[in-house]
Amino acid sequence: MEDQTQHGQASPEAQQRIQTSFDRQGLMSHLGARITHIGPGRVHIELPSRPEVTQQHGYFHAGATSAVADSAGGYAAFTLFPGDAEVLTVEYKINLLAPAAGDHIEAVGTVLKSGRTLTVCRLEVFGVQGDRRKPVANGQQTLIRVNRPEQ
Amino acid sequence: MEDQTQHGQASPEAQQRIQTSFDRQGLMSHLGARITHIGPGRVHIELPSRPEVTQQHGYFHAGATSAVADSAGGYAAFTLFPGDAEVLTVEYKINLLAPAAGDHIEAVGTVLKSGRTLTVCRLEVFGVQGDRRKPVANGQQTLIRVNRPEQ
Amino acid sequence: MEDQTQHGQASPEAQQRIQTSFDRQGLMSHLGARITHIGPGRVHIELPSRPEVTQQHGYFHAGATSAVADSAGGYAAFTLFPGDAEVLTVEYKINLLAPAAGDHIEAVGTVLKSGRTLTVCRLEVFGVQGDRRKPVANGQQTLIRVNRPEQ
Amino acid sequence: MEDQTQHGQASPEAQQRIQTSFDRQGLMSHLGARITHIGPGRVHIELPSRPEVTQQHGYFHAGATSAVADSAGGYAAFTLFPGDAEVLTVEYKINLLAPAAGDHIEAVGTVLKSGRTLTVCRLEVFGVQGDRRKPVANGQQTLIRVNRPEQ
Repeated sequence: MEDQTQHGQASPEAQQRIQTSFDRQGLMSHLGARITHIGPGRVHIELPSRPEVTQQHGYFHAGATSAVADSAGGYAAFTLFPGDAEVLTVEYKINLLAPAAGDHIEAVGTVLKSGRTLTVCRLEVFGVQGDRRKPVANGQQTLIRVNRPEQ
Repeated sequence: MEDQTQHGQASPEAQQRIQTSFDRQGLMSHLGARITHIGPGRVHIELPSRPEVTQQHGYFHAGATSAVADSAGGYAAFTLFPGDAEVLTVEYKINLLAPAAGDHIEAVGTVLKSGRTLTVCRLEVFGVQGDRRKPVANGQQTLIRVNRPEQ
Repeated sequence: MEDQTQHGQASPEAQQRIQTSFDRQGLMSHLGARITHIGPGRVHIELPSRPEVTQQHGYFHAGATSAVADSAGGYAAFTLFPGDAEVLTVEYKINLLAPAAGDHIEAVGTVLKSGRTLTVCRLEVFGVQGDRRKPVANGQQTLIRVNRPEQ
Repeated sequence: MEDQTQHGQASPEAQQRIQTSFDRQGLMSHLGARITHIGPGRVHIELPSRPEVTQQHGYFHAGATSAVADSAGGYAAFTLFPGDAEVLTVEYKINLLAPAAGDHIEAVGTVLKSGRTLTVCRLEVFGVQGDRRKPVANGQQTLIRVNRPEQ
């Protein structure tokens, strides 16, 4: 899955579908996160630094780092689904590699394997300060595709 | 570690130290989480339901569930440290067992192994609705003890 | 799932089915592992100490420890399936808590959540020396139920 | 860490040190595994297909796949250590992406982050059949550096 196509844009339909779903995630707007890239099998989410997302030493809280990483992976999986499917996180594992600092963090979710039922994603988070982009977390996530619940 | 002592209270000094650290976590107060139990090797954190912590279907967001689970495990490890040490999350893995619903979720962090450098915790999260308490997530976490940075 | 029923025996049919499958795992007999308990939602596997299962310092190799833990969890899930289903490991995470030493190690797989498609198990491994039983590894595993392939 | 240097060879001293340690792992020779590449921060291990490493359907057992992945990551970390240090696996998480089949499997351990105490590695396993190389497992591992025990 990790080829150049991931750096392109997803179809307008998929982009619309994902942005709509993201906008319904109360947590993402409460944290101040926003989607910055939607490619086929790859989604980027940015979270700006502010006191509301910190741990006790002023770095990004592992929970905030994980939340945007989890959402980036979920939507990366979602880009490869048909319009009537939903995605749920089965589980993920994340290593916090370094204190997460910077103007913002950027979470990148990338599909490693897209199966009929299960999808596996790589999760990467970077601390960004001006031109500097430093890895702060790395993880792996399993997702399940489910039929959209009746509206 | 999983004996009855964990259901008792930690020393007043440890309780104070943990509450002070928790109060400095901008994310926890921004989410609306609060510590409800501090025992030796075990900490409980509650997160009430509200739109600001949801995913797109109105359940608790996996990121919110993980954030309180991670903090519960971190503080559980912290209860067994001397006063001049700090704790950092090395990594954790969490399974989302069921949609997280209820009046609130309760995260329980329990120390499985407390070593000189590394601590391993079990993470459990329950969805609580009135008298009903249902497991919604289960995880495992590795933490490292570090010297407190100079103030 | 973690109630006393797990300490009972599984049905003779389930025990037979699991023993037959286990006997077809070339790796388990090559390592010298054997099933010692088959309860509903819980399976124990023992691996005796011998040079063929060690790492460079003479302890049980993490790979051997993981292999029996993975099999114990897989068969624990299998005890709760109908006779025509198969189980595959989706993923697992394991912490090596202490050097694995002893006459043998005992892996215990316990079902935490049994769903229609996915099952989540807890994995525990103990180093056993005479009367002494010490935790050496702790993990969590996700499994998927699949239809038995045509013979 | 993931730059071209990883595709080069480690120093003769490091290669010797790692081969010696590997040769003392009873499990690796019992399984029939061998090291095929030792680069700075990257190690490859091959495991040929044979009945002794299978699960009940004739594929490579997840435990065998994990064992070589764990060793590949451990030795990848080891390439970056001074000669008097040892490495222990703290934990790892692995997703089994597809049934592991082929003439042999190849495990690739790559250092993502090398710290003073902890190292984090990416684990990849491929099923190889002639010219075809297919991903069968993907994981992430945490290791700790310890002083070599007195001989």
